[in-house]
Amino acid sequence: MRMYDIIEHKRDGRALSDEEIEFFVRGYVAGETPDYQASALLMAIFLRGMDAHETTTLTLAMEHSGDLVDLSSIPGIKVDKHSTGGVGDKTSLAVVPIVASLGVPIAKMSGRGLGHTGGTLDKLESIPGLSTAIDRDRFFQIVRTHGAAIIGQTGNLVPADKLIYALRDVTATVDSIPLIASSIMSKKLAAGSDRILLDVKTGSGAFMKDLDSSIALAEAMVAIGEGAGRETVALITNMDRPLGHAIGNALEVAEVVDTLRGNGPADLTHECCALAAEMLILGGRASTLDEGRSLAEQAIANGSAFAKLCEMVAAQGGDTAYLEDTSRFGAAPVAHEVTAPRDGYLAAIDTTAVGTASVELGAGRETKDDAIDYLAGITLLKNRGDAVAAGEPIAILHTADEAHLAAARPTFEGALTIASEPPAAEPLLFARVTAAGVERFA
Amino acid sequence: MRMYDIIEHKRDGRALSDEEIEFFVRGYVAGETPDYQASALLMAIFLRGMDAHETTTLTLAMEHSGDLVDLSSIPGIKVDKHSTGGVGDKTSLAVVPIVASLGVPIAKMSGRGLGHTGGTLDKLESIPGLSTAIDRDRFFQIVRTHGAAIIGQTGNLVPADKLIYALRDVTATVDSIPLIASSIMSKKLAAGSDRILLDVKTGSGAFMKDLDSSIALAEAMVAIGEGAGRETVALITNMDRPLGHAIGNALEVAEVVDTLRGNGPADLTHECCALAAEMLILGGRASTLDEGRSLAEQAIANGSAFAKLCEMVAAQGGDTAYLEDTSRFGAAPVAHEVTAPRDGYLAAIDTTAVGTASVELGAGRETKDDAIDYLAGITLLKNRGDAVAAGEPIAILHTADEAHLAAARPTFEGALTIASEPPAAEPLLFARVTAAGVERFA
Repeated sequence: MRMYDIIEHKRDGRALSDEEIEFFVRGYVAGETPDYQASALLMAIFLRGMDAHETTTLTLAMEHSGDLVDLSSIPGIKVDKHSTGGVGDKTSLAVVPIVASLGVPIAKMSGRGLGHTGGTLDKLESIPGLSTAIDRDRFFQIVRTHGAAIIGQTGNLVPADKLIYALRDVTATVDSIPLIASSIMSKKLAAGSDRILLDVKTGSGAFMKDLDSSIALAEAMVAIGEGAGRETVALITNMDRPLGHAIGNALEVAEVVDTLRGNGPADLTHECCALAAEMLILGGRASTLDEGRSLAEQAIANGSAFAKLCEMVAAQGGDTAYLEDTSRFGAAPVAHEVTAPRDGYLAAIDTTAVGTASVELGAGRETKDDAIDYLAGITLLKNRGDAVAAGEPIAILHTADEAHLAAARPTFEGALTIASEPPAAEPLLFARVTAAGVERFA
Repeated sequence: MRMYDIIEHKRDGRALSDEEIEFFVRGYVAGETPDYQASALLMAIFLRGMDAHETTTLTLAMEHSGDLVDLSSIPGIKVDKHSTGGVGDKTSLAVVPIVASLGVPIAKMSGRGLGHTGGTLDKLESIPGLSTAIDRDRFFQIVRTHGAAIIGQTGNLVPADKLIYALRDVTATVDSIPLIASSIMSKKLAAGSDRILLDVKTGSGAFMKDLDSSIALAEAMVAIGEGAGRETVALITNMDRPLGHAIGNALEVAEVVDTLRGNGPADLTHECCALAAEMLILGGRASTLDEGRSLAEQAIANGSAFAKLCEMVAAQGGDTAYLEDTSRFGAAPVAHEVTAPRDGYLAAIDTTAVGTASVELGAGRETKDDAIDYLAGITLLKNRGDAVAAGEPIAILHTADEAHLAAARPTFEGALTIASEPPAAEPLLFARVTAAGVERFA
């Protein structure tokens, strides 16, 4: 078998055989296939596509390129959750304790923020003392004892994804559904959970800007999960606006605490309960979405979800006094109020630009080596669709100094569109994708 | 400017700007652009195409990546000829002396054979003493004195083509009209002639197997030549069968001698006169194709073309006694007669396979370092469309030993299709492509 022929087959729009896909992944990881052949193949895949079987085969070949996490020593049905990434998306921090408090074990590996989207690990690490660098035995022990842990990746998981992603990143072959789906799902499969909930964001702050591509990506990922024998469900959720009011690490932890205490923003609370309901069904704890949602709402109302968050944070070494009283986080030195330039409606938010402004304020990384300012970020006082009066505060920008503010302010202000008419209302949840098909919500 | 953006633009089907194309060629030749980005761009070009302006810009950028040949010290309109490569295609060896004998100077750089097609340099070098490694001053002097020379490439011509071609060759991006056209034309432009005749082969032995792609390639190359200010004409000629009877280096030289003495095969003689007529018009020596053809026929009939071949060969150090008496070349030790298995017609010839059989007999190279057996090759006694009787000789395979014969014989025999009915007749010349458009010959 030769890489040349594999490239040629895909170039000509043919489906690659299992052997061809496995030859490519194995040869590239082994350093036997040069980058220039891999990139030619990736561009051919980008432009010619891959069918569901090819995409699943690619994912499984990538999954098996490195270590696999074996969660069988943890009793129960382990359910994982993955978000394709958004702005103000702190759902994992709320949903994991909700679901774990109801008896479904969560052994979750998360990532760091890069670019305009935040990362769950960075948010967690804003809690003093908390560690996400936990070895595998201790990780399993925390999940067995407390029902949940969220850590950084351990071991050599999916080296094929690291290599292929790095090459895609410099050859303009990132935005391809089979390549995105295989990248995400190979890591989810290697991470060892039995069932998977995917939160596929759609809109101006998401990787996928339109609903149809978001559904197509979700369908591809669900097909892979099911093809690999792991029940997989995807929700398509709104990222045409930031989620909740808070963007930035400690700010988002505080908002999660508010949410688990029943005082969170309505959009965030609603979405967290919807995600938790799906995970409760996947975990065998609920039979219907209504039952799952009701269980999640009860876990918030009776304090068990917040107690579970504290329990998990403590097990990972975090100081729960910061959760009991989030004012302990303190505030960034500079707090700048952005006001509405005129009367009208907040008609559109370029949510990616809002995420970029948050990074410019210090809340995220522009390159992998940047340090994070845990107190930096944005508090939204208005969101998409809200009426605003001239001079009325829209948001507060939190940052370390005037230099950061000067960089971020035009980015943030440029992200807002004020119009005379309110925009068409958009739902929080657009669709649900399962093995049975796509269910669009109104 | 970043390669990433250039790849992305072409990936999305956009036309690249002049600056983008020049940035790519310059950066790749300078070693600043890595192979993996170049190959991703080449695959995007392969699948998305390039318009005429982009293709011309790419060609000019490649042309200017190295040395340029300045033929201005040679008086007259210099006309070049390029064949896209065929089996038994010895036309350059006949046409160059015909045209030069009529006063049009030819300063030609040719290539070696690789794969199933032969190369003019290899054929010339079968003449004892003849050198094609001639420095530029001596090359110019031969053309000024004798009107023609055919040498190997001197100087660092079009390094961009060497680099890009090597990458295309291992990334399945060879068969792309803009990439083929720019590769050929960048070398023709750098070689310095004022006007260019292209012989674009079509059929089973050609790079382009069907007429429409051959015409498309010819149109792309003519557009480039004209865009670069060099009048360019292309003939689309038949390569669904070998040209003439002889395949192999000394065998083809002998056939050229026969042709210039008026005893050549009809198909070869006809095609050489058609090509010569085009070059005589391009060189300002004839006003019409009829006049050009008539002049070419006269140059054969009155012996001046053969005399010019001898003069050129002598100037390059070759022993013209081998041209005066081609039996001096001698014969290969093994001569095997291939006979017809049954009565019928030679309905089809897989001409690429015939070329491959010739290489297997020793007449060509499978890799760049292989030595050539100048006496090896094939004499065709029948060609496409001829009636054959069971047991009647179809061809003679010439080679050094039985081992070579054993390798080549099944290849050759498998290339022939004998049928009960004769195939539809095909013309020798299919079409003529100029700046004015495409003229198809019935």
